Parts: sequence; structure tokens; C-alpha cells
Amino acid sequence: MGTSPEVEASARSRILDAAAEAFMRSGFATTTIDDIAHEVGATKGLVYYHFRSKFDIFLAVYGEGMRRVRERVEPHAEGPGAGRDRLVAMSIAHLLNLMEDLAYHHVVHQAVRGEAMTALKPRQRDALLDLNRLRNDYEQMFRRVVTEGIDDGSLRRVDPTLATRTLLSNLNAVDMWFRRIDGQTGDELHDLAGRIVDLLVVGLAG
Amino acid sequence: MGTSPEVEASARSRILDAAAEAFMRSGFATTTIDDIAHEVGATKGLVYYHFRSKFDIFLAVYGEGMRRVRERVEPHAEGPGAGRDRLVAMSIAHLLNLMEDLAYHHVVHQAVRGEAMTALKPRQRDALLDLNRLRNDYEQMFRRVVTEGIDDGSLRRVDPTLATRTLLSNLNAVDMWFRRIDGQTGDELHDLAGRIVDLLVVGLAG
Repeated sequence: MGTSPEVEASARSRILDAAAEAFMRSGFATTTIDDIAHEVGATKGLVYYHFRSKFDIFLAVYGEGMRRVRERVEPHAEGPGAGRDRLVAMSIAHLLNLMEDLAYHHVVHQAVRGEAMTALKPRQRDALLDLNRLRNDYEQMFRRVVTEGIDDGSLRRVDPTLATRTLLSNLNAVDMWFRRIDGQTGDELHDLAGRIVDLLVVGLAG
Repeated sequence: MGTSPEVEASARSRILDAAAEAFMRSGFATTTIDDIAHEVGATKGLVYYHFRSKFDIFLAVYGEGMRRVRERVEPHAEGPGAGRDRLVAMSIAHLLNLMEDLAYHHVVHQAVRGEAMTALKPRQRDALLDLNRLRNDYEQMFRRVVTEGIDDGSLRRVDPTLATRTLLSNLNAVDMWFRRIDGQTGDELHDLAGRIVDLLVVGLAG
């Protein structure tokens, strides 16, 4: 059966969406290819046509999650504007990505915790190392803006490495308790993200 | 074979320690009773003598983790002292517990993320609800001190519920990146905990 490239791309992306949801709900270890196929309303054969294994699906979800968050945050990293203002804008964009794309975020987070790390084939290990490198670049982009904020006087003289790590892990930890409420508008999410970032940047004591 | 109560208590606590480590390393789903027995250097029979199932071990580790962190943090919650100073002391105590008892902390954290939630027997569900209640009490203790800090003017007028949730999830997120370094002294851990709490309470901009 000859399917067009568009149909195949859409099947692939539906598999990724379903896998992200399933990994978030049940964890990587307990999710099966059958669960994912069932969720897409497809056969196991279709899933295996696109991906060689469950771990390859996991890697593709991780990569797509990183691509989406970076695409959203990167435009705010460049000046003009004080380091603090750019850091606030980047942090809000990161949180909005988390809130609107919770399942993908959760999978990236899970990868970091190493819960999906089992015995890997060489090509899988390489793919994972590439993704971890992307994550490090992402963290470095935040660290650069923290450093610029310290230099321009808009942030206090904190340790840039510890401050960046703490900020990012604080932003990511929102997935521990955040669940989108039905009918919650984009403005409401933006307001919530802004209040969380304010707590991190200005602190509880201010 | 008649063993003394002390020996039995120590076997039980060695099983819990080993299980906490195994759950942290491999996740709840992939850890087996065999893995735990192997780690203690005991038979599967000894493990089953103390616990009816892997999930019961998980519940016992969770309970022990909650008991330890509460024991350490609670003395700092009471006055005298401004709300802010008490909150800082509680937060440092919470982080020191996390750093020194990482595996137990990780299991409690995992329980919160719901990764261990499979089909539960009624007695297990009740035990889990009791533990979740302990966790809520713990969060409420922090919220009370945040509110007292706002009232006495030592904290700014933040939303106490959002601020408490953000603070606790930020403290817990330290387990994402913290790994104890060989030879790291108690003083060094205390210093690191103090700097992280400072970032949370005073913020990056201050």
C-alpha cells in the first residue's frame, strides 16, 4: 500500500503523541508497544513500521520534546533587554511549554532521571548522548543569560552554575503538581507561569 | 529458628534500605523481590517473612522516609523567630535529609509522581492514603510558617499556597541533580543546602 509522505509523517507524529501520554501515565517500563498501538487505534505492525523498538520511540519523543521547548524559549534569549528580563521571558516560555505539552515534558524529565535507562544498543546509546548534549546546550543558554544579568546588574551576584541548575530544576518540578484544568485559557496559564517565575526570580522574601 | 526482636528489626530495616536503593536505581516497576533479597544478601524467604509484597515494601519505605524528614524538620517550625528564619531553617533541614537519605527521599518523590501506582488491594490503598495524608500535613506545616512570615513582615505578600507548593517542589527537585561526592563533609552539605535555600527565599534578583 503506497501512502503519501504526509500521511506517514502524520502517523509518526500520532504515535509519538500517544507514546508520550502512555509513558507519562504508566512509566516507560510498564508501557508496551501494544498499549501505544491501541491508543493510536493502529496495529502493532504500523508502529513497528515507523520505529524499531519501544526505546526508539522514547528517543524520538525525547528529541521532539527538546525541539519544541527550545523553539519556544530561544527567541527570548537574545537582547536587547536586561539579563533579568530575558531570563524571566525565557522561564515563562519554558513553563508554558511544560503546561501545554505536559506529556513530552514529562518524558524528557524522565530521561534525565534515568528511569528509562536499561541495556542500550550502541546506536541507541549514541542517540541518547546526542539528546543529552542538546539538553546541556539548553542549560548553557540559560547560564549565559544568568551571567549577563549578573554583569549588567539586573541580577545579584549568585553562583551562575548553581543558580541556573536550581532555576531549571525548579521550573521542571512544576510538572510534579501542575495538571491543566478543563477550560483554562492561555491567559490564565500565562498568569500562573508569571507568578511562579516571580517566586523564583524575586524569591519569597524579595 | 528463634531470632530476637532486635535481630528481626535490623533485618527489616536492612531490607528497607536495600529496597530504597534498588527503587531509586531501577524504578519500582523493574525492581524484583529477588533484586532486593540479593542486595541484602538474604533469601527471598526472609524478605517474604517481613513483607507480603513488593508494594508493601514500597509503602514501608515511603512511611520511613516521611518519618525521617518530619523528625528533622518539625523542631524548626515552632517559634520564637521570624517566619522567614524558621522557613529557612526548615528548608535547610529538608534538604539535608534529602542529601543524606537520597534513596528514601527518591521513593517518596516517586510515590508522589504516581509511578508506583498499579492495581492496589484495599489495605494497600488505605495505607497509601494514610501516607498521602502525612505528606499533606507536612506541606501544611510549611504553609503555616509561610503565612506567619507574611503576617510578621519577614516575607513579602505572596500567595501562601502557591509559594509553599513552589518551595517544596523546588526543594524536592534537588534530587534531580544532586549526587553525594565521596568525602563530602556535613559542613559542605550544610553550606550547599544554605546556598540553594538562599536562591529560593531571596531569589535570583533579591
